[in-house]
Amino acid sequence: MNNAFALKGNILYTPVCGRIEAAADSYLVCEEGKVAGVFDTLPEAFWGVPVEDFGSRLILPGLADLHVHASQYAYRGLGMDLELLDWLEQNAFPEEARFADLDYARAAWDIFVEELAKSATTRACIFATVHRPAALLLMEKLEQAGLAGFVGKVNMDRDCPDCLRETTGGSLEETRRWLEQSAGFGRVKPILTPRFVPSCTDELLAGLGALGARFNVPVQSHLSENLSEIRLVGRLCPSSRYYGDVYDRAGLFGGPRPAVMAHCIWSGEEERARMKEAGVFIAHCPQSNMNVSSGIAPVRLYLREGQRLGLGSDVAGGAHLSIFRAMTDAIQASKLRWRLVDDSLPALTLPEALYMATKGGGAFFGRVGSFEPGYEFDAVVLDDADLPTTRRCTLTERLERVVWLGDGRPCAKYVAGRKLF
Amino acid sequence: MNNAFALKGNILYTPVCGRIEAAADSYLVCEEGKVAGVFDTLPEAFWGVPVEDFGSRLILPGLADLHVHASQYAYRGLGMDLELLDWLEQNAFPEEARFADLDYARAAWDIFVEELAKSATTRACIFATVHRPAALLLMEKLEQAGLAGFVGKVNMDRDCPDCLRETTGGSLEETRRWLEQSAGFGRVKPILTPRFVPSCTDELLAGLGALGARFNVPVQSHLSENLSEIRLVGRLCPSSRYYGDVYDRAGLFGGPRPAVMAHCIWSGEEERARMKEAGVFIAHCPQSNMNVSSGIAPVRLYLREGQRLGLGSDVAGGAHLSIFRAMTDAIQASKLRWRLVDDSLPALTLPEALYMATKGGGAFFGRVGSFEPGYEFDAVVLDDADLPTTRRCTLTERLERVVWLGDGRPCAKYVAGRKLF
Repeated sequence: MNNAFALKGNILYTPVCGRIEAAADSYLVCEEGKVAGVFDTLPEAFWGVPVEDFGSRLILPGLADLHVHASQYAYRGLGMDLELLDWLEQNAFPEEARFADLDYARAAWDIFVEELAKSATTRACIFATVHRPAALLLMEKLEQAGLAGFVGKVNMDRDCPDCLRETTGGSLEETRRWLEQSAGFGRVKPILTPRFVPSCTDELLAGLGALGARFNVPVQSHLSENLSEIRLVGRLCPSSRYYGDVYDRAGLFGGPRPAVMAHCIWSGEEERARMKEAGVFIAHCPQSNMNVSSGIAPVRLYLREGQRLGLGSDVAGGAHLSIFRAMTDAIQASKLRWRLVDDSLPALTLPEALYMATKGGGAFFGRVGSFEPGYEFDAVVLDDADLPTTRRCTLTERLERVVWLGDGRPCAKYVAGRKLF
Repeated sequence: MNNAFALKGNILYTPVCGRIEAAADSYLVCEEGKVAGVFDTLPEAFWGVPVEDFGSRLILPGLADLHVHASQYAYRGLGMDLELLDWLEQNAFPEEARFADLDYARAAWDIFVEELAKSATTRACIFATVHRPAALLLMEKLEQAGLAGFVGKVNMDRDCPDCLRETTGGSLEETRRWLEQSAGFGRVKPILTPRFVPSCTDELLAGLGALGARFNVPVQSHLSENLSEIRLVGRLCPSSRYYGDVYDRAGLFGGPRPAVMAHCIWSGEEERARMKEAGVFIAHCPQSNMNVSSGIAPVRLYLREGQRLGLGSDVAGGAHLSIFRAMTDAIQASKLRWRLVDDSLPALTLPEALYMATKGGGAFFGRVGSFEPGYEFDAVVLDDADLPTTRRCTLTERLERVVWLGDGRPCAKYVAGRKLF
C-alpha cells in the first residue's frame, strides 16, 4: 500500500445536498492522493498504513472559495460605506495599480497566501491583477504553500483608470504569454479573467474566447451583481439579450470549458436557462452582496433549478476569507430574502450551505469536496474544545457550532493528499 | 490627585452620532472612576499620576450590549434553521428549565461571565431565567468579575411549558423577594423582565408595574420583533392599540423609569411616537433578526426620529457576543434594507454604528460610552498588530479594520475606572 494513510476522528461530509453524513470515531483513508473511503474499522487492505489519530476532533472536506480577489486582501474591512461602482473607483483600482511593482506584489501576496493557507479553504478561484508578472508570482507562492486552484491575470481595456487600462492587443498578448508561462504549474492553474463586461471591449472578450479554446482554460468573471452595473452593460452592449449573453457570444460562458460567474443576484429567466444549459457555476458571495449593497441572490431557486453552485468570500467586497463565515452569511441572507423579498423560497439550511462550501463549489475543480471514494483528498481537522458549552452535542450540532462560532482555522489541513500542517 | 491615572495611546470615540473623534498618541485621564478628559499632553494637574502606555494601540469606550440572554449562551449557534416561536419552544425553553438546578446554573453562568469579561462589552442588559436563586447567582458572578449593568429575573405566567410557567402571584412574590435581595449589589442592578407579552398576563404586567414604581427599577423586554408574534399579541390583548401599548398600560414603557425594548422591527407610527415621548430605548439586534427570520429594523428612521438607540447581541438569537460584530451586522442589514425594502432610508455608516455601540446604548446606564469629561471611565484597548496589511491606515481606518476583522477581544479593559485585565 504505497502512499496510503488514514485519519481517525469524527468525519462529516455531504454526499447529497442537504444531508450530512456523520461517521463517529472512524477512519478516512487516503491512497495516492485520493479518498479510498470512510470506515468504522480499518479494512484489512489498509492494515499497517500510518494512522493519525485526531481523537474527538471533527474532520471535514476542505472548503472551496469560488471567488476571491487576492489583491484586495490588504484592504478588506475598509471603505465599507461605499456602493459597488464607487468602491471600485475609490478603493479597488488605486490599490491594484500598485501591483505593477513586483516588490509590492510580493509583500501583498505573502500576506494573502499565508492567511489562505491557515484557513479551511483548500481550493480557490483567485483574481490577481492585470499584471502578468504579479499573477505568475502569486501562482508560484500558492503552489509553494501547497494550495490548489485557479489564478487569473485580470483583463481590462476600458472604463478604468489609465494606470490599469490595457490596450486590447496588449491585454491579449500579455494573456497569451502568461498562459504559456504558467503551463508548468502543478495544482495551481491559469483561468481567463475578464474583469467584467464594463471593463472589457467586445474585441477583448472575443480574443480571450479564442485564447481559451487554444489553451483549453476555464473562465471566471462577474455577472448580474448590481442594478446600475446591469444597466451599464445594457448600454455598452445594446445587441446583447442579457448580461451573460455578452460572455456567451465570446465563447466565455461554459460549455466545453468551465466558467464560474460571481454573484448572479439579478439573473433573469433567460440568463438562468442558459447558465443551466452551459453548466456555468455560480459563485454565491453573500457578504460582499450585503457590503456593497447589491442584494441577495435567490439561492433556493438556483438549487431547485439544479444550477451548479458554490460559495465565494469575494474578499474584499466580503471582509472575511473564511468560507465558514460565507456559509452562515448565506443562511442569514436567505432568511432575510424569504422574509422581505419572496416567501415562496425557503431559507437555506446548514447542511445545504455545507454542501455548497464543499462538494457544490468543489466540483469546479474536479472530483473535490467530498469523502466519497475517488475524490481528491482535501481534508481539514477542526478543534471545538475552545467553544465551551454545558450542552451535550451531537456531531452535527458540534459542526453547527464550529461553523457559526469558530475562528475558521483548522488544526490540520490536507490538499490532494498532501499535509500542509 | 487621589485615584487618578492615565492611559496613553490612540484614542477614538463618538461624542456625536456619525462623527469619530480621533486623538493620536494622547492621554485619557481617569479621576475617581470618571473621565477627566482627553489631552495631547498631560495637564499640570495630572503630572505624576500613573500612566499606562499602550503605544500605538487603539483605546475606545467600552461597548454596551442592550439585550442578551445569559441562559442561552450555551447553545448559541444551534438550531439556527428555526423561526422565532419554534426556536423558543424547541431550543430556549427546555434549556431554561434546567436553571432551576443551581449547580447547572453555576456552570452555565461561569461560561457566560468569563466570555463577557473577555469581550469589549463593559455594560449589559441581561436576561437570566425565571429562577430567583439563579438570577441572584448571576448578579453575584458578574459583580465579582467587575462587570456592570442590569440583570433580570424573567417573568412568565402563560403560554410556555409547565416546567417554566409561574403562577401570577408566585411570579410577583418571587420578583419582590429578588428585588429586596438584590438591593445590596453595586454595579450590577436588577431590572424588571417580563419576557414578552405572549408569556405575561395583564395581571402580571400590572403587578410588575407596581413593583417597578415601589422599588424604582427599570424594565427590559421584547417588542414588535416578529409578524406572527405581533398578531398573537393582538389576539391576546384585543383592547391594546399596538404592541407597546400593553406594556405602557402597566407602567412598563419608560417615562419615570427607563425601559429598553429589544428589536422594534415592525413598530408602527403610533408605537414609535409613544417610544420617543417616553424615552424608551431600542435595542437593535441585527444578527438575531436575521437568524430567526424576523426582518430588519428601520434604524435610519429611528436615528432621524431621535429615538434612543443601542445595539444588542441577543445571544442566542444572535450567535455572537461581540458588539463589534453587532455593529457590522447592523451596517450590512441596513444596506440590504436600503436595497430591498426602502431606498429612502440610507444605510448606516461605521461611525453611526460605533455611536450606537457606545454612547447611544451606554446612555441606558447613565453617563456611559464616551470619553467626554464626567463620563464613567469604561475603556477597552485594542491591538490590531495581528491584522497584517500593506496599506498605511489612518486611525479611523485602523478602527474600521479592527471592528470588521478582529476577534472582538481587547487586550485591556476598564469598567468605571477599575482595571479588569
